[in-house]
Amino acid sequence: MATGHTDPQRRERILAATLDLIGDEGVAGVSHRKIAARAGVPLGSMTYHFTGIDDLLRQAFTRFADRIVAVFEQHLGRATGPEQAREAVTDLVHALSEGAVRDLVLTQELYTLAARHPQYRELTQAWMRRSRRLLEQHFDADTARQLDALIEGLTLHRALDGSPHGRDLTRRAVARITAGS
Amino acid sequence: MATGHTDPQRRERILAATLDLIGDEGVAGVSHRKIAARAGVPLGSMTYHFTGIDDLLRQAFTRFADRIVAVFEQHLGRATGPEQAREAVTDLVHALSEGAVRDLVLTQELYTLAARHPQYRELTQAWMRRSRRLLEQHFDADTARQLDALIEGLTLHRALDGSPHGRDLTRRAVARITAGS
Repeated sequence: MATGHTDPQRRERILAATLDLIGDEGVAGVSHRKIAARAGVPLGSMTYHFTGIDDLLRQAFTRFADRIVAVFEQHLGRATGPEQAREAVTDLVHALSEGAVRDLVLTQELYTLAARHPQYRELTQAWMRRSRRLLEQHFDADTARQLDALIEGLTLHRALDGSPHGRDLTRRAVARITAGS
Repeated sequence: MATGHTDPQRRERILAATLDLIGDEGVAGVSHRKIAARAGVPLGSMTYHFTGIDDLLRQAFTRFADRIVAVFEQHLGRATGPEQAREAVTDLVHALSEGAVRDLVLTQELYTLAARHPQYRELTQAWMRRSRRLLEQHFDADTARQLDALIEGLTLHRALDGSPHGRDLTRRAVARITAGS
């Protein structure tokens, strides 16, 4: 009897379908039934792989955060020295704010969840720690914390702005916040 | 026949109930029926005051943004000169990030709505313009834009952080981003 329980792709497919569904309908629209249908897996495999909706949301958003941290890493990893790191941060802000709207939606859905339910903050906190650690490869810890907040604000404002600011403004802001680091 | 349609309090009560409901259940949970029940108004008065759910959400979030802009104004209005303005911005970040969790939830709910439906961005854009105009009383336009993004990021990160950063770090970040303005 092929239950498919050992199919390593199935868990991944469920997580991908969860993020897709959240992108379309929001966290409020998530149910085992809808996700199973979207992932093309039997309903029973949902409870085999995940203990419940909370576990599923946590793992799906962890996967999402992993992907955004990887974008941070790609940009910051190739910088040698603070000047290149500043340019990499500028690129990062523009890549994130001009990227798929779905990523903006998922980020805001996660923050909303964390704002409403403190148990999800451990997830946003782990994400912040990882971003800061990558910034700390190039800047002192205090500067990394300030810069991480600036990246967040600039990215969000660019993404929602009707006439988003240009690279020059991002570059100047990054130069200012890292001055003296 | 007392329909209550002319009761000026009724519209306000409906908007307040809408924000309360969004705070508790999110935008996805909003319905005319639930809001009428919460506001203690007849269901028919919902369509008298608002053309539909979109109109209601737009007016409720406008009311919310008005309140946060007023907090900006209270802080920045009393500052005379850039040094006091920097201190006022530091106070503002800490007031917003230590304030009611409900405000954090409502802010994120609005951003999620704007991320998902471009027609709501006009609302977040108007909000950004008003914040920047208040900052421009003390700083040049470019700096105001950078500072507005920094305020957003610092406030969000403090609100979600398990060990939020102290005033000194906020003060240093604000000083850096406004240096040379």
